[in-house]
Amino acid sequence: MTLKTWPDLAGRLGMYEGEQRHTLPVRVYFEDTDAGGVAYHASFVRWCERGRTDFLRLLGTDARRLIDGSESLEPAAFVVRKMTFDFARPARMDDVLEVVTRVKEMGGASVTLNQTILRDGTRICEADVTVVLVSVSGKPLRLSEVMRKALGPAIA
Amino acid sequence: MTLKTWPDLAGRLGMYEGEQRHTLPVRVYFEDTDAGGVAYHASFVRWCERGRTDFLRLLGTDARRLIDGSESLEPAAFVVRKMTFDFARPARMDDVLEVVTRVKEMGGASVTLNQTILRDGTRICEADVTVVLVSVSGKPLRLSEVMRKALGPAIA
Amino acid sequence: MTLKTWPDLAGRLGMYEGEQRHTLPVRVYFEDTDAGGVAYHASFVRWCERGRTDFLRLLGTDARRLIDGSESLEPAAFVVRKMTFDFARPARMDDVLEVVTRVKEMGGASVTLNQTILRDGTRICEADVTVVLVSVSGKPLRLSEVMRKALGPAIA
Amino acid sequence: MTLKTWPDLAGRLGMYEGEQRHTLPVRVYFEDTDAGGVAYHASFVRWCERGRTDFLRLLGTDARRLIDGSESLEPAAFVVRKMTFDFARPARMDDVLEVVTRVKEMGGASVTLNQTILRDGTRICEADVTVVLVSVSGKPLRLSEVMRKALGPAIA
Repeated sequence: MTLKTWPDLAGRLGMYEGEQRHTLPVRVYFEDTDAGGVAYHASFVRWCERGRTDFLRLLGTDARRLIDGSESLEPAAFVVRKMTFDFARPARMDDVLEVVTRVKEMGGASVTLNQTILRDGTRICEADVTVVLVSVSGKPLRLSEVMRKALGPAIA
Repeated sequence: MTLKTWPDLAGRLGMYEGEQRHTLPVRVYFEDTDAGGVAYHASFVRWCERGRTDFLRLLGTDARRLIDGSESLEPAAFVVRKMTFDFARPARMDDVLEVVTRVKEMGGASVTLNQTILRDGTRICEADVTVVLVSVSGKPLRLSEVMRKALGPAIA
Repeated sequence: MTLKTWPDLAGRLGMYEGEQRHTLPVRVYFEDTDAGGVAYHASFVRWCERGRTDFLRLLGTDARRLIDGSESLEPAAFVVRKMTFDFARPARMDDVLEVVTRVKEMGGASVTLNQTILRDGTRICEADVTVVLVSVSGKPLRLSEVMRKALGPAIA
Repeated sequence: MTLKTWPDLAGRLGMYEGEQRHTLPVRVYFEDTDAGGVAYHASFVRWCERGRTDFLRLLGTDARRLIDGSESLEPAAFVVRKMTFDFARPARMDDVLEVVTRVKEMGGASVTLNQTILRDGTRICEADVTVVLVSVSGKPLRLSEVMRKALGPAIA
């Protein structure tokens, strides 16, 4: 049971208008919905985090290696510093959505990602999420050159 | 088992600088944390929704009555249209937090709430959340006079 | 964006020892973990629900059609009546798991499913979950012949 | 902002028929419900975990001290080994529920808790949950005498 067996489990990376984009399919399950009959708004936040995690994974940097410290001098994780969500349309049980992630801005220790959630190609939600690489002790860490290069083509 | 038995279950309403504010205590449980050792960022989104729900409850408008349609001509619910979250400090397992909610702006069918999450009086997260009253059929509904008056003193 | 584009999104149905089995891949994300550094136990409950939902989907019965009432005389949903979970090993961030679902017993209005969660072929969790088809008004509904036939081969 | 300010935040301990019982009030929020219009079944699992956490807290053992290692020779946490849930009635948005927790059995490294979820005194869900004290390295740890004594009166 490897990524070969479930080839799209981490979504797909692709170029679009000279820019690297990651697309992750997401199914809406009961756990994601609420008594209003539609997807709960915090579910979109979870879906975007899945998109960011798999974007990094396909770029070669998985979250567990960061936590283990094998990617930097000390154990680290990306933490969300700021996020803005615009909800244009509801999502419903059984919907197949796509979370499209691209790098919008890169700072010394932070990255701002633009994330769009689509259904049948129509945007139902758009988010800007700024994450910071932070050591377990809470200190912001400068993004490594390897990581900057991996993210870089996305904003070339 | 009524609100009398658990008097603070829906938090407390109070005036602060001529403005109505609602405070809801929230405990950080395992369900709210992640493998980074701190509270998952989407947990803050859930906590703010609890704060808004109980703010409305103490103002006399509970979510179930909206859904049942007893508060308007047709079943309705507040849905989130836009939200911005700034995360200043992490929250940790067992922390006692306070979600402070106040009305920031009121439109025809929408309300923007400012929500601050505190630990020991220190702000660890701040959010602006715009909600819209929407009928089950998806149509924005004008806020009733009763609801506007209830929310109104908060922005007088 | 259809199931053809993301072919394994709902997992796969297959025969194993004369029995129909459904396998759904599940990635462990931050949302699923807790401050203990492993997957939160309620995450396994959500994963099993995804497995049951997609098992029914591939058998031709999706949850939304049940709720819409297009599958029976009135809107309905499967609700969990009883569940037992045995946790043998922890799951960790970034793990790829497989939820294997099979019908264990079928009653008039209920189905008991046996669900196993595997990592690299090793069982880390096993569950028995009994679900009942219930109308929106709360009345148990007899499983339709179509549904019984769809589930039936699984226990032939 | 202390437990004195929000006196019931961790629920209440009391004796009932010579047995120690813990009661935690829980409000049903949108996050807990699903598109079926009732509380999602995994929400009950989270509520029971809150009850167990606050039961231990009022007995003097909070989860963070276990993780920090200040309660034992090495960092540790209670993990769920086995759980059985019987769902008798649905819970709905805005409901006030009570999670009643008592010790059912105590082993060397494990404790089985019986947990009942009530609404207006009527049982809507009953669970037996076996937890094991495990070190961060994954080894089961014997319950300390302090912890056994704290839990002990509950089964005297």
